[in-house]
Amino acid sequence: MRYKITIEYDGTDYIGWQKQPDQPLRSIEELLQKAIFVIIKKEIKITCAGRTDAGVHAFAQIADFEIEKEIAPFNMMMALNQGLAHTKIIVINCEIVDEKFSSRFNCKWRAYRYIIINRKAPLVIDKNRAWHVPVKIDVARMEAASHYLIGEHDFSAFRDAECQSISAVKIIYDIKIIKQDERIFIDIKAKSFLHHMVRNIVGTLVYIGTGKMEIDDMQKILEGRNRTKSGPNAPAVGLYFSGAGY
Amino acid sequence: MRYKITIEYDGTDYIGWQKQPDQPLRSIEELLQKAIFVIIKKEIKITCAGRTDAGVHAFAQIADFEIEKEIAPFNMMMALNQGLAHTKIIVINCEIVDEKFSSRFNCKWRAYRYIIINRKAPLVIDKNRAWHVPVKIDVARMEAASHYLIGEHDFSAFRDAECQSISAVKIIYDIKIIKQDERIFIDIKAKSFLHHMVRNIVGTLVYIGTGKMEIDDMQKILEGRNRTKSGPNAPAVGLYFSGAGY
Repeated sequence: MRYKITIEYDGTDYIGWQKQPDQPLRSIEELLQKAIFVIIKKEIKITCAGRTDAGVHAFAQIADFEIEKEIAPFNMMMALNQGLAHTKIIVINCEIVDEKFSSRFNCKWRAYRYIIINRKAPLVIDKNRAWHVPVKIDVARMEAASHYLIGEHDFSAFRDAECQSISAVKIIYDIKIIKQDERIFIDIKAKSFLHHMVRNIVGTLVYIGTGKMEIDDMQKILEGRNRTKSGPNAPAVGLYFSGAGY
Repeated sequence: MRYKITIEYDGTDYIGWQKQPDQPLRSIEELLQKAIFVIIKKEIKITCAGRTDAGVHAFAQIADFEIEKEIAPFNMMMALNQGLAHTKIIVINCEIVDEKFSSRFNCKWRAYRYIIINRKAPLVIDKNRAWHVPVKIDVARMEAASHYLIGEHDFSAFRDAECQSISAVKIIYDIKIIKQDERIFIDIKAKSFLHHMVRNIVGTLVYIGTGKMEIDDMQKILEGRNRTKSGPNAPAVGLYFSGAGY
């Protein structure tokens, strides 16, 4: 039986999705594997839609795994959450899917939300949950610059040096920027992303929003395909994997 | 010089605004007094607009205090925040006001926001920051019931047994209920509140929203003036002091 699960996590204390042998029980992947092990006494492979980095959160990460035993989805979810008690990870949905389903390879779109809090005072309530930008951001400038990114482009300018993707050509379906009082939400939807692509885009948008770069610099940066010309890599703390479509 | 400060705090770790002799350095009041003591080497009295209970948060608590020395407001704010480092309290605004100003007695209105997350799965990202209600809430029912509360009424039905207010007659100026996906925000504005009034009102609204009580039960409860007839006291975790007007 193959299970598709939706997971929420507060990534603050973790090294990211992927397990690393020198850091036991500090990755989302390994903590989930451990919770599954408690149920079926076997270590199994888990695949996910978007492997998040250290400190990155998820409202709705999608993952899948296969086990021999059939357990009703609701019972599976409850058992997993029992195993995940005392972690900052929780399974919020669980269903049985086709044996061939892959949360990674069948994914039609992935969505990230980036949260900025734009105010002078440091954060307390939203500490570790948003990027604190003390300099005034003009959201209309960010909005205007974001339009250059929609569609199919070579995103080399927003690609991390360690990115292992074969091609830098990606398709951004949509970018929505919403301002609610001191909060700025940046919602980005794409077929898939390069490593650090969302955070590099957000860093560049913030440079434009605060006047360190011009609106049309976004076009020049995109066309230049040179990572050293784009803005800073926005901190992990503000990034949330927010959904995946199949 | 009298200073008016606006404070944000995550109330999770604290016993509330008011200091208690048997629990040193666990109240907002005492931690602020300590931060002021570092600056002027004197223990002074601090007054606030709304003394919050244990676990209750604030986006914008208003407080005031008087010192002999004149310190520029921005420097005062920075010095206070230095003293508050490693706490979950932060001063987000500071100004010098008239010597006669009192954040408590000159207050024209106080506002609270209550945050509910209405979904089956327990909370991870919003743990300690919202009330988790797993049963489906019909917001339109809450909305309809809230109208009975607007205006001047005897709120004895929503008053805690320990409330020290002379009169139970209070004026609610406005209640706004906003639904955003799984989140429900209840914004309540009044001249002043009885002890536990917001949480008792929210508990009753949730009973109505989930069908445990009828919409017009709100009117009967209000007119009955009997605390045992209203809904449960909603947990502190979802409550935020959100502002005060002068």
